[in-house]
Amino acid sequence: PDAASIAEAKERQMSLTKPPGSLGRLEEMAVFMAGWQRTARPAIARAQALVFAGNHGICAQGVNPFPQEVTVQMVANFEAGGAAINQICRVSGADLAVVALDLDRPTQDFTAGPAMTEAETLDAMRRGAEAVDKGAQVLILGEMGIGNSTIAAALACASFGGAPEEWVGRGTGSDEAGRALKAEVIGRGIALHGGASPLGTLAAFGGREQAAICGAIIEARALRIPVILDGFICTAAAAPLYKADPRFLDHCLVGHQSAEPGHRKLLAAMEQTAILDLGMALGEGSGAGLALGVLRAALECHNGMATFAEAGVSDA
Amino acid sequence: PDAASIAEAKERQMSLTKPPGSLGRLEEMAVFMAGWQRTARPAIARAQALVFAGNHGICAQGVNPFPQEVTVQMVANFEAGGAAINQICRVSGADLAVVALDLDRPTQDFTAGPAMTEAETLDAMRRGAEAVDKGAQVLILGEMGIGNSTIAAALACASFGGAPEEWVGRGTGSDEAGRALKAEVIGRGIALHGGASPLGTLAAFGGREQAAICGAIIEARALRIPVILDGFICTAAAAPLYKADPRFLDHCLVGHQSAEPGHRKLLAAMEQTAILDLGMALGEGSGAGLALGVLRAALECHNGMATFAEAGVSDA
Repeated sequence: PDAASIAEAKERQMSLTKPPGSLGRLEEMAVFMAGWQRTARPAIARAQALVFAGNHGICAQGVNPFPQEVTVQMVANFEAGGAAINQICRVSGADLAVVALDLDRPTQDFTAGPAMTEAETLDAMRRGAEAVDKGAQVLILGEMGIGNSTIAAALACASFGGAPEEWVGRGTGSDEAGRALKAEVIGRGIALHGGASPLGTLAAFGGREQAAICGAIIEARALRIPVILDGFICTAAAAPLYKADPRFLDHCLVGHQSAEPGHRKLLAAMEQTAILDLGMALGEGSGAGLALGVLRAALECHNGMATFAEAGVSDA
Repeated sequence: PDAASIAEAKERQMSLTKPPGSLGRLEEMAVFMAGWQRTARPAIARAQALVFAGNHGICAQGVNPFPQEVTVQMVANFEAGGAAINQICRVSGADLAVVALDLDRPTQDFTAGPAMTEAETLDAMRRGAEAVDKGAQVLILGEMGIGNSTIAAALACASFGGAPEEWVGRGTGSDEAGRALKAEVIGRGIALHGGASPLGTLAAFGGREQAAICGAIIEARALRIPVILDGFICTAAAAPLYKADPRFLDHCLVGHQSAEPGHRKLLAAMEQTAILDLGMALGEGSGAGLALGVLRAALECHNGMATFAEAGVSDA
């Protein structure tokens, strides 16, 4: 990020007709955008939302009550405009693209071996990177994949330690027994793959959509496009990147504090504070898409407000 | 609210292509709107934002570092389109109207006597009611008035008890000494006016914008127009109404959890949970205006999403 643009944007915030700091997070977001866009007056002409979808071999362990066919069915629903993320992108003005990653070829069961080979992992990362719109000013990331709340908890646990139980929630439709099963399955995975490198961890637990999210984050970093990560699963997908180097995520915000209990712990570990906390646990980029509305308001205030001098308002 | 529409809206939420409950607060907001609009498919064609402005005799006690002229200057800024609320209303699609209430004639200093007579209080309430757009589907309420964070803390303290210190924050630009002064001033006011009826409390502490907010809330209740209250000062304005009868506020949501420390305590006392928590402390309806964006997204999801049957997605 550009220090001069950040300084100029901060100075502008201090001159606008409001008590300094009274727009809270909105001020921070405007300054953040200024740094990445290298202008004191950042704007969003084009916003992209990318939803990556994948299937997971871990479903063989019975960690999710929904059949894996739901992943492809939901991708069709995204394409037909019927999902929550379609409505949210319309409201917040983002162009939605859905990338289905070999849904007919799930990753391997991570309790038996690595979910993906290193080549498969890098290929999924590359596909994530290629999906990024180089002309976008902000990128919303989301995911869909039956069973992937187990993948998320495993990635978080492998990256930041602690017992699997601390990272596992009910995901989509699991009861307490389902939650215990997920923790037990993750424990077996950690026993098998614990101590792997960041890339090794991503390959070990999968899945393709998690690797694609990592690839898109790195591509956006190179293009200086700020990213809004969604909730628990999307943040956990980026955990191996954070472990590799926290600076990979310098351009990332987190849109929504998930109702999944592991998310709070994960955000603390990754030095992030979510923008929204609306009790949601859907994924699809829904929380990030809603946060885009807040980001747009932050930039409208930053660019559209009068200064004390312009408005003839007495400064304290 | 209409029970049949609520039941039908809840049933629709259960049929949409998402795990039940996974849209959290968005689902609750859609169902809430259904009840007040008496239809299972609520929509917002017209949103109104009302900002009431007033001046306060309590400023004679030095509770605010800004001069009272700032109130009229900020009203001019609202009218010229230069304030935060102007930008936020543009983004979230609300028609903004500003009602300046006798700014050249501040209320009386409440440490010496009642801020307003009963007649003045009722007149300000009536002016608030008259400002409500009868054709709006949602009403955003906000305020502006130098010194009114002291009024807010006094109304909260008088309505719900506790020590003044528990209700007092720094407001706009006060330091720790300023905060202590505010608490001391409020203590003198409570000693003079404590134990008054709800209407008596509103008259005792003022101000006109607080009374106008109460009038607008009651008018909107009669018209079944849902209201989004802003932050600390706007919520505190409604505290006497809540004390008179909590049902006066059945149609109210709170947009933003203020950075003012008293707000959390006030929301608990009034059985409310704010929609957003972005560290803001500005007023003007800014937090309520941002929350309107979330409400719009909630209704878009409610009305625009496909059902499991429509999308051919397997239900668990």
